[in-house]
Amino acid sequence: MQPINERYFEDYPVGESFEYGPISVTEEDIVRFAAEYDPQAKHVDREKARSGVFKGLIASGWHSVSLVMRVLVDNYFSAVADIASPGADEIRWPNPLRPGDRLHVRVTVLEARPSRSKLDRGIISSLVRALNQNGEPVVSFKVVSLVLRRQR
Amino acid sequence: MQPINERYFEDYPVGESFEYGPISVTEEDIVRFAAEYDPQAKHVDREKARSGVFKGLIASGWHSVSLVMRVLVDNYFSAVADIASPGADEIRWPNPLRPGDRLHVRVTVLEARPSRSKLDRGIISSLVRALNQNGEPVVSFKVVSLVLRRQR
Repeated sequence: MQPINERYFEDYPVGESFEYGPISVTEEDIVRFAAEYDPQAKHVDREKARSGVFKGLIASGWHSVSLVMRVLVDNYFSAVADIASPGADEIRWPNPLRPGDRLHVRVTVLEARPSRSKLDRGIISSLVRALNQNGEPVVSFKVVSLVLRRQR
Repeated sequence: MQPINERYFEDYPVGESFEYGPISVTEEDIVRFAAEYDPQAKHVDREKARSGVFKGLIASGWHSVSLVMRVLVDNYFSAVADIASPGADEIRWPNPLRPGDRLHVRVTVLEARPSRSKLDRGIISSLVRALNQNGEPVVSFKVVSLVLRRQR
């Protein structure tokens, strides 16, 4: 693909996948995110987490999505043509994200269609999946982006 | 409803809604979240944001979800019976969240059904919506929770 500073709607090839990462997260980061946004014991309290369902601290699901988002902003979304995202769908957290895990992110371009109402842009739909170092899926979602077309 | 320290699967009344907030967010908080997880110009660069589509800094969509999550953890999800969330669906960001906005959160219990495979728990599906001070929708999503049943 074009570098993110020269990437437009036309540069997203439907059906292709791209891989990024690995991402890693520390226990300190897990607790810091969760203390602010998701202070459930399994995310912030090491002792309670140890005796809980997951046998140890796990990241907030919104933290894992945010960590993946950072990789996408650095590598996948256009830095010059991305207008906004109207939404995301089918977020799944099939396995926990634990301190020290390494996430590999794979993004697939599901759909790219020109907007019918606004000729300057198109709609990109992407499937995002992150697997840990054991190949287990940790988080996945679909996200829609409005992206400017290249001016001709 | 029961206080969150005594709240179980049986305490979520299908069809009822609960209101929380308001939540407020500062420009500093918007930039701090986005610098770490979503460093797009519209979220971190005041000058570029001013001349952009939204005419000023707006929060990352994942930040707005995380802010709403905090209110749900403090008020809605059980502090004793919540096991995990398998996923969330239909995240929508129809209007931007700007510094100083006040979000009112409304949660509706969509569905509560006992697990078929595990007798100790049930599945709660909730619709979460946040409106700003002008009554405009800013973020909405559905979220599923696995919640322990009250021991009898």
